[in-house]
Amino acid sequence: MICVLSGGTGGAKFVDGLRQVMPAEEITLVVNTGDDLLWWGLYVSPDIDSITYVLSGMLSRERGWGVKGDTFLCLQAMGQLGEPTWFHTGDRDLAMHLLRSRLLAEGKTLSEATAVISQKLGVKARVLPMSNSRVETRVDTPIGELSFEEYFVQRWYQDPVKSVRFAGASDAEPAPGVIDAITNADAVLIAPSNPVTSIGPILAVPGIHDALLHARGKIAAVSPIVGNAPVAGPAGILMEAHGLPSSIAGVAQAYEDFLDILICDTRDSRAAEALRQTGLRVQCTQTIMRSAEDKAALARETLSFVTASLLREEPASDTSFRRLDRQP
Amino acid sequence: MICVLSGGTGGAKFVDGLRQVMPAEEITLVVNTGDDLLWWGLYVSPDIDSITYVLSGMLSRERGWGVKGDTFLCLQAMGQLGEPTWFHTGDRDLAMHLLRSRLLAEGKTLSEATAVISQKLGVKARVLPMSNSRVETRVDTPIGELSFEEYFVQRWYQDPVKSVRFAGASDAEPAPGVIDAITNADAVLIAPSNPVTSIGPILAVPGIHDALLHARGKIAAVSPIVGNAPVAGPAGILMEAHGLPSSIAGVAQAYEDFLDILICDTRDSRAAEALRQTGLRVQCTQTIMRSAEDKAALARETLSFVTASLLREEPASDTSFRRLDRQP
Repeated sequence: MICVLSGGTGGAKFVDGLRQVMPAEEITLVVNTGDDLLWWGLYVSPDIDSITYVLSGMLSRERGWGVKGDTFLCLQAMGQLGEPTWFHTGDRDLAMHLLRSRLLAEGKTLSEATAVISQKLGVKARVLPMSNSRVETRVDTPIGELSFEEYFVQRWYQDPVKSVRFAGASDAEPAPGVIDAITNADAVLIAPSNPVTSIGPILAVPGIHDALLHARGKIAAVSPIVGNAPVAGPAGILMEAHGLPSSIAGVAQAYEDFLDILICDTRDSRAAEALRQTGLRVQCTQTIMRSAEDKAALARETLSFVTASLLREEPASDTSFRRLDRQP
Repeated sequence: MICVLSGGTGGAKFVDGLRQVMPAEEITLVVNTGDDLLWWGLYVSPDIDSITYVLSGMLSRERGWGVKGDTFLCLQAMGQLGEPTWFHTGDRDLAMHLLRSRLLAEGKTLSEATAVISQKLGVKARVLPMSNSRVETRVDTPIGELSFEEYFVQRWYQDPVKSVRFAGASDAEPAPGVIDAITNADAVLIAPSNPVTSIGPILAVPGIHDALLHARGKIAAVSPIVGNAPVAGPAGILMEAHGLPSSIAGVAQAYEDFLDILICDTRDSRAAEALRQTGLRVQCTQTIMRSAEDKAALARETLSFVTASLLREEPASDTSFRRLDRQP
């Protein structure tokens, strides 16, 4: 069993690769819900949507979000009604939000609603929201505090970022199954998602950081940063706002308490060498995922690095001690 | 000022004619909400939708419901998610339901939500739901009691009808403006809608029947029945289940307490002659509305019958007395 911590865009690409190289039944995903928003009165969970769409083969690979071949007529009509249209919900995509919203209105938890939808779409992997409590990623900017989707989608991450917080996180609980999935996985993979606003909210849910410290399996992260820039999106800006360098060193720092292996791009081999001096295992490979083959290759490489590390290293029982030593 | 009591299909066609021959600003519509349903968790008001769409020029004239040129991709996706798809909500149409549902969830009444939507779509006529309380038309059949939309749309009105009731009607109140619109209109027109399930729920709201008895203006109804059959839909079956003959005599009987003028098709001129013996003013004209010209002609004729009746008859002050005499 593999446990993957993931956001939406980079995470979905990585998961698209994983499902090509291993049985989906053996994957549990713990997905960021810090970007969730109420949109047109519907509960939208962008990262769960992307992960669900990629696992059901519905994701638009061109856009990287939403349903392939989708149309936007409802969006157009909402615009005519004077409603906001900056969050692009497609007509097919709406079905997901309608069903989830109805299930939540009927009293189901986000976990339960996610399981129902997964089952209906034939998703074999287990998709878990990080929490059933509302945790909101809030981005503080000179024009005020924005939700992540306002910052990212509505305003094209053009605003300087003062800080990021995860409102509600301290009162949140991990969703059922999350702690067990992390603790007992053969390996925990951190997808090449934004460390601050995709993985950060997951780590902010009380209990999850601790579960990572006590995880039985190896913990490997794929860097979303190549050189000094993210592969896509605002990860660099947000890492710097969070006091982390926009580099693989920053990624390593974000996960330093529990990380066993950092997987970075071959273009970062010099930075990787420097990082290895700190005692971290760093592996270089091709991390840019353009084609289905790229995705499968990265997934295969990631799994092989983890397996190799298992074969070459101390017995699994020692792992947690080593990690706990690293605790601040 | 003209007040029109209306359902969806025949009513929308009639209103389409009216708006061609008189200023929309001078029309107040009191619309049936007995067919309203919760669909995919959204509040759908089929008759208000049809009336709003016709008044904003958005109605699909081919189908007689929904938005012209609409697509049904969300419906398809809902089907893939295992959700019901018998009620055909188009992608553009969904915007209406989403906005209304959000407004209601925010605490607005159906009247207020309807006014907001009318304003956003540039509707000049005043569209009033018959009531802000929930009144549900329930159709009793051998397979059990069905909502109107289940009976009509889901099951294609194939079930024998034992009876019809308007659940919640006795506790309902007319929506703000309804009583005033009926009482003070220069004329009240009853659209060629189903007398039992389109106009019936309106009349079942306490206070509305009484307002019709005391209306200052003439009350004219356009028959939805030609010969012994409705122009469309289950009006005949439902009238018979309600103890009314499926004929213009049945329509006259449904409205006998307050009706001044019945407008029926020229093909019913013999039945009209018989009805006139009862003292009712009956006018024959072409009532089948196929083209925009047909609709305009029927609207023009209806208005001229009402005007002529005003010119030729007793002063308006006597009207209410005559009507009150007819009360059971």
